[in-house]
Amino acid sequence: MSGALPGPPAEAVRRAVALALAEDLGALGDLTAALVPAGALARGALVARAAGVLAGRACAEEAFAAVDRSVVTRWGLDDGAELGAGTVLAEVEGPLRSVLTAERTALNFLCHLSGIATLTRRFADAAAAGDPRCRVLDTRKTTPGLRALEKAAVRAGGGANHRGSLSEAVLVKDNHLAGTSIAGAVARARALWPGRTVEVECDRLEQVHEALAAGTSIVMLDNMGPEEVAACVAVVRGVDPERRAVLVEVSGGVTLETAPAFAAAGADLVSVGALTHSAPALDIGLDLEEG
Amino acid sequence: MSGALPGPPAEAVRRAVALALAEDLGALGDLTAALVPAGALARGALVARAAGVLAGRACAEEAFAAVDRSVVTRWGLDDGAELGAGTVLAEVEGPLRSVLTAERTALNFLCHLSGIATLTRRFADAAAAGDPRCRVLDTRKTTPGLRALEKAAVRAGGGANHRGSLSEAVLVKDNHLAGTSIAGAVARARALWPGRTVEVECDRLEQVHEALAAGTSIVMLDNMGPEEVAACVAVVRGVDPERRAVLVEVSGGVTLETAPAFAAAGADLVSVGALTHSAPALDIGLDLEEG
Amino acid sequence: MSGALPGPPAEAVRRAVALALAEDLGALGDLTAALVPAGALARGALVARAAGVLAGRACAEEAFAAVDRSVVTRWGLDDGAELGAGTVLAEVEGPLRSVLTAERTALNFLCHLSGIATLTRRFADAAAAGDPRCRVLDTRKTTPGLRALEKAAVRAGGGANHRGSLSEAVLVKDNHLAGTSIAGAVARARALWPGRTVEVECDRLEQVHEALAAGTSIVMLDNMGPEEVAACVAVVRGVDPERRAVLVEVSGGVTLETAPAFAAAGADLVSVGALTHSAPALDIGLDLEEG
Amino acid sequence: MSGALPGPPAEAVRRAVALALAEDLGALGDLTAALVPAGALARGALVARAAGVLAGRACAEEAFAAVDRSVVTRWGLDDGAELGAGTVLAEVEGPLRSVLTAERTALNFLCHLSGIATLTRRFADAAAAGDPRCRVLDTRKTTPGLRALEKAAVRAGGGANHRGSLSEAVLVKDNHLAGTSIAGAVARARALWPGRTVEVECDRLEQVHEALAAGTSIVMLDNMGPEEVAACVAVVRGVDPERRAVLVEVSGGVTLETAPAFAAAGADLVSVGALTHSAPALDIGLDLEEG
Amino acid sequence: MSGALPGPPAEAVRRAVALALAEDLGALGDLTAALVPAGALARGALVARAAGVLAGRACAEEAFAAVDRSVVTRWGLDDGAELGAGTVLAEVEGPLRSVLTAERTALNFLCHLSGIATLTRRFADAAAAGDPRCRVLDTRKTTPGLRALEKAAVRAGGGANHRGSLSEAVLVKDNHLAGTSIAGAVARARALWPGRTVEVECDRLEQVHEALAAGTSIVMLDNMGPEEVAACVAVVRGVDPERRAVLVEVSGGVTLETAPAFAAAGADLVSVGALTHSAPALDIGLDLEEG
Amino acid sequence: MSGALPGPPAEAVRRAVALALAEDLGALGDLTAALVPAGALARGALVARAAGVLAGRACAEEAFAAVDRSVVTRWGLDDGAELGAGTVLAEVEGPLRSVLTAERTALNFLCHLSGIATLTRRFADAAAAGDPRCRVLDTRKTTPGLRALEKAAVRAGGGANHRGSLSEAVLVKDNHLAGTSIAGAVARARALWPGRTVEVECDRLEQVHEALAAGTSIVMLDNMGPEEVAACVAVVRGVDPERRAVLVEVSGGVTLETAPAFAAAGADLVSVGALTHSAPALDIGLDLEEG
Repeated sequence: MSGALPGPPAEAVRRAVALALAEDLGALGDLTAALVPAGALARGALVARAAGVLAGRACAEEAFAAVDRSVVTRWGLDDGAELGAGTVLAEVEGPLRSVLTAERTALNFLCHLSGIATLTRRFADAAAAGDPRCRVLDTRKTTPGLRALEKAAVRAGGGANHRGSLSEAVLVKDNHLAGTSIAGAVARARALWPGRTVEVECDRLEQVHEALAAGTSIVMLDNMGPEEVAACVAVVRGVDPERRAVLVEVSGGVTLETAPAFAAAGADLVSVGALTHSAPALDIGLDLEEG
Repeated sequence: MSGALPGPPAEAVRRAVALALAEDLGALGDLTAALVPAGALARGALVARAAGVLAGRACAEEAFAAVDRSVVTRWGLDDGAELGAGTVLAEVEGPLRSVLTAERTALNFLCHLSGIATLTRRFADAAAAGDPRCRVLDTRKTTPGLRALEKAAVRAGGGANHRGSLSEAVLVKDNHLAGTSIAGAVARARALWPGRTVEVECDRLEQVHEALAAGTSIVMLDNMGPEEVAACVAVVRGVDPERRAVLVEVSGGVTLETAPAFAAAGADLVSVGALTHSAPALDIGLDLEEG
Repeated sequence: MSGALPGPPAEAVRRAVALALAEDLGALGDLTAALVPAGALARGALVARAAGVLAGRACAEEAFAAVDRSVVTRWGLDDGAELGAGTVLAEVEGPLRSVLTAERTALNFLCHLSGIATLTRRFADAAAAGDPRCRVLDTRKTTPGLRALEKAAVRAGGGANHRGSLSEAVLVKDNHLAGTSIAGAVARARALWPGRTVEVECDRLEQVHEALAAGTSIVMLDNMGPEEVAACVAVVRGVDPERRAVLVEVSGGVTLETAPAFAAAGADLVSVGALTHSAPALDIGLDLEEG
Repeated sequence: MSGALPGPPAEAVRRAVALALAEDLGALGDLTAALVPAGALARGALVARAAGVLAGRACAEEAFAAVDRSVVTRWGLDDGAELGAGTVLAEVEGPLRSVLTAERTALNFLCHLSGIATLTRRFADAAAAGDPRCRVLDTRKTTPGLRALEKAAVRAGGGANHRGSLSEAVLVKDNHLAGTSIAGAVARARALWPGRTVEVECDRLEQVHEALAAGTSIVMLDNMGPEEVAACVAVVRGVDPERRAVLVEVSGGVTLETAPAFAAAGADLVSVGALTHSAPALDIGLDLEEG
Repeated sequence: MSGALPGPPAEAVRRAVALALAEDLGALGDLTAALVPAGALARGALVARAAGVLAGRACAEEAFAAVDRSVVTRWGLDDGAELGAGTVLAEVEGPLRSVLTAERTALNFLCHLSGIATLTRRFADAAAAGDPRCRVLDTRKTTPGLRALEKAAVRAGGGANHRGSLSEAVLVKDNHLAGTSIAGAVARARALWPGRTVEVECDRLEQVHEALAAGTSIVMLDNMGPEEVAACVAVVRGVDPERRAVLVEVSGGVTLETAPAFAAAGADLVSVGALTHSAPALDIGLDLEEG
Repeated sequence: MSGALPGPPAEAVRRAVALALAEDLGALGDLTAALVPAGALARGALVARAAGVLAGRACAEEAFAAVDRSVVTRWGLDDGAELGAGTVLAEVEGPLRSVLTAERTALNFLCHLSGIATLTRRFADAAAAGDPRCRVLDTRKTTPGLRALEKAAVRAGGGANHRGSLSEAVLVKDNHLAGTSIAGAVARARALWPGRTVEVECDRLEQVHEALAAGTSIVMLDNMGPEEVAACVAVVRGVDPERRAVLVEVSGGVTLETAPAFAAAGADLVSVGALTHSAPALDIGLDLEEG
């Protein structure tokens, strides 16, 4: 159940919201909010205007609270929830000026992160159509400064997280093989970073053999078509029939159209940079009641 | 000439890159770069893999330099330049480990910001097809924490900037009219913030009359079709035939398909949230020479 | 009513207070407060020792709370309130150590910002004596790091805010005319930054003509005497008799003595750097009851 | 010689300038600088427009460099130097856009800090007129966030620094005597913070006796007239004729007019909050050569 | 009573904890805590596993609260309390995931700071065995970034604080005597920093004479044995028999074994770098009740 | 070769040094350095006073440079080098004031981090004495705020890094088994975090069987003696004779005395919290030439 997934670290939420508010308020604050009476109160709701998946709830809550502790948000849904056009995410109540001032920052987080969750869900569904065991992974191609929040949005969408940072796992690519072989690189990785996940990017079948022989834990098949993937998977499953010791990740060229085929070809994981670098925002708005 | 446009503030670049590197390096740094010899040198190039418009050069430069001052980047192009698949943006030279470590952060900025510049250019061209005097505007729907960089990317793409923050101009929307009229709101805006741009969102023609009477400097036509826009423009131009005192901005529902029609209908400005909230990344990569 | 004016952004208050406390507490904290018993309680009041205008309330509240959440401050007045010698601003209650530790930081904000509000009120009154329609503006000559708080203090004093940052409006001065005319500069400003306020600094009458012809929204008369100002105003009002399209700002040499004359000469705005760079602190203290 | 005095810590300069630039550049950067050609170069000079004492050089240098590393500033004078109207502080050379963008931030530091140094010099001279051994002290009544820079400006002006933070020395005031005597408080201070300077605020002569008996290192005479001060000094000098063990500080009511009398009355130190909370800015400007 | 001692500044606690959590949570947060059900609750206790002295309570409280405001910690003891193996410091209650996520950060502060307090207590007891008037001092040899917290831990352990920063007092060492004598250096110190504690490091008896003649407030005896110390003390006490004007600090080579002898030799203060640079952590753990 | 090991991220070094300098310089800077002539130059060397292993070079370099860019440090050794009493690490040259001001901060990093590297080397040697294939691991028991630097110091000492943060790997302990079995927890870990290292803490042999059956990648044996470890190793090696798929980590009670026995018992890894929480500082000093 998605509600059981861990959200973003509280500290990351606070820092990102503080930064976002600082850049949106500028030196004078909200010129326009000053036009409404200081004592006016607002009641309204955060409402989805299109179908998708919710993410960014903690950021939106924090945005309203950071502008004004007296603004109250009551949420009926949590990250990971399916939204339709018109779904109410939360009720918002508090001083009208404060609500107007926080609105855009709260929505920017919600729309951006829900956009990621929504695209992730679509990819997850596409992969599952090929094979329900296939998982969708994000990448390190995230928006600078929002890594923790975007990775949490991927989880909300039903995806899994690839490396969150360069210190989480070893991933050997072509450029890391300067003057050495896959075997040499993996051996060095095990010596330097014992017990770590070691993944090897393979462009062709013979590299898969090398990577398996070297004892890699994930074989990443880079820019292959489904048939090549199937051939590589056959090799891997020959060694590890129960998907316990080695996982196969497909990377490059995974689209909503090709994902089912890659999954059906036996990929355990398909990684999709677009989840975080090209997801369009989900349209979510704030509807205020007539004064 | 795009080279003449102001880039992002240097401080904003430094801060964003420092944050991005911190989140990507984690507690241990780059596990995988440690596999290559400490003394190995890299030579390579940042290369566009698809057509588009460059933005984010300063961020990419800073990313390499912040990881290792001895990495050198030589740029032949600047923000705003047209790229084709295969265009070389810059040569990169330095310690291989450092180049590998900085690569993703540099590319994340380049791809994200060039994606924005590229989409902006397409919208600018579309609007110009309708009327070359029509300008494309961004909005405050930016990715949290990247406002200054994204607004600079819009400029690189040939767009113009709407408010960079809530303190830059007054923009009166429905929710600001609690208990008052457009005339009342504009009068209050002029009293509170003398000399500021005052823009009024209008949903229907009669509000345009009100806004003009109140002396607004920009009339924002919200969610109208091209015909309605034309009717409103006629009213505005009746008062200000030379486009000197009042500008007409069209907002809501502006797509690459509809932009020409809105421009042809006489809009001075079309604002497009998608420029910053939904632009897909432009594919740019780092090609390293064989060791 | 001043109470209706927007105060400083909450985030700006928190950041400024955290910085101020860090610099005042040093590495060991308050050596002297440690002399009083840990359990002693304080009751007292923040009291004005001279006549003036209150500003900085939010900072003072935050200073006490940031040192110790259990210190309570109860305010009877808000920013913008008139103070006389002896006026009680707020009651303060909490652990004596904490109150003593926060005292200086709270007062530094209050005295500095109220000093600005007080001087602003005097200038506002002086200008109003010449013409009640004339407004007093601050400048960007603020104390580094305190821009948002000082601009809010100017509002509390009855002044209006000029640009809060370089990104809020265009202000063309001599040095911006390198190789171009006023007409050229304004045209370029409108092309680069459509819809923005464009202000032009004029040293002599003919420049006023040029600026008006170029379509500037504010004419800034720099270092002129009241008679020259009156002559320039006559030109401007000839074009815009109702003060709708073009405002006249007087800058340079505006003192409490000359402000009435400039206002009487027809200036819409007089800008005064001294409001923020040379306002003496208002004397406010903390009176504690005998233990 | 003032050149021998320590300036502000480099880190404090960097942080303050980064903050000041961030608040001045806003989200879009300098709209107006974009009007001048990208390639235009500027040559100019920072020039005093009134007599005073220089402070803030390091901040001004950093402001230009932080905006653009290619801007060069060449200084002929250092903090503490006497300035007359027309004195050239430094030559500035670099891209015109960058010079214009950094100008206000650099000047805000220079004018504010030189204002403090200038007022300090006047107080130092006034005190010296009474007795050349008398030194002028600042207080903790500094502008929030600028403590380190303002204290350095006081040194540049020839003043000495009182506590830089609450952790630097013990200063016992009335409110610290809750339930104890001066003797008790000093004893506790020596027990808690051995070897620290302990200063005691005295409102009347008998407290001076108590403070001396308790072994205080500085006696602060609060709000006394010169005659009372002379009487207290006589008591202190009776115990410590060579000004070695106990210093007498006069605090409260010290003005340029009264400072000589307090010095003549034998005060070792006169502390003046106005040095940092009420010094008017010194007028310094940037003169650019005609393009 | 240790409860009366001032703890670390609240701001220092918040900043250190935020930093520590950011580095421990990384980009994804706590992978393992996600394995337990989102709704599971934890009850447990922070328990000492060895004898020692408590310090760091405020940091531990803040660590749990910063991860999740709904985690409650109930403390029966405060900094400075004696702990035995098995002593319960606090009860902890809240969502199991949050408790597990915060556990290590809370314990890292507690174990490190309590380790310092514990070693300080041992040194304080050792010194007291030689002479109960002798106090143990820390140094500036603290762990970078934790100065304020470690100095508070020393106070909790019964030690006193030497300089918290370079701006708190003058300490003249060999390297500061370039081209001058002790007398010259002290005179210059008194001129530059009137009223400040001036301490002089002495390697041999004649320097003690010089330092006394110069009017130093603390004589630091560097790397002497107890007999040499006794000889120096005799000289100092000859001038200041009541320990009022000059303190003797012994520095270098002070161990738990030698501390009593140094105290017995008449040292007022013994300073021990090891308190902060080499104190082993005190073993404290979190015991959770069976689910 | 240790020189080939990755040092700490540059950003982490800059941030830690900036923080350390800020806390050491305080509001006034270095009072004592001001006693030496502004123009005096220093030449000296960083010298080890005891045998050990170097770590922290980058921090020391940065500390001198951050205080004054004109201070030059020339290093003959890099992190990981063996030091004897008297070994020169680096020559230092620059303005005497700056060198004195930076000295303590540079040394605090060097002494603390070299202390960690030194203790790590001793543990690594001890483990190697039992079996050269056995590696020493650090833990997350690091000093708050210094995780990245301390983990790099462990690498310099020849140790390997366990998790750098909670997001790097899954480590299932007792408290994570609330309501589930080892098999359940590992299955959930693989589902939530595919491809990640999953480690399971085992208190007794039967849990080792469970963990192996569940497919864990590291078995952590907690608080067992060497014989129990040997028994568990036998089970693991029965399944994975070539040490490829499962590693055995011994945790708890590993001392310099017991490490050889644990290694000899077949442990692949021994983890030692003391490396980072209890390593005494290595004595390193700065020797300056006579002026």
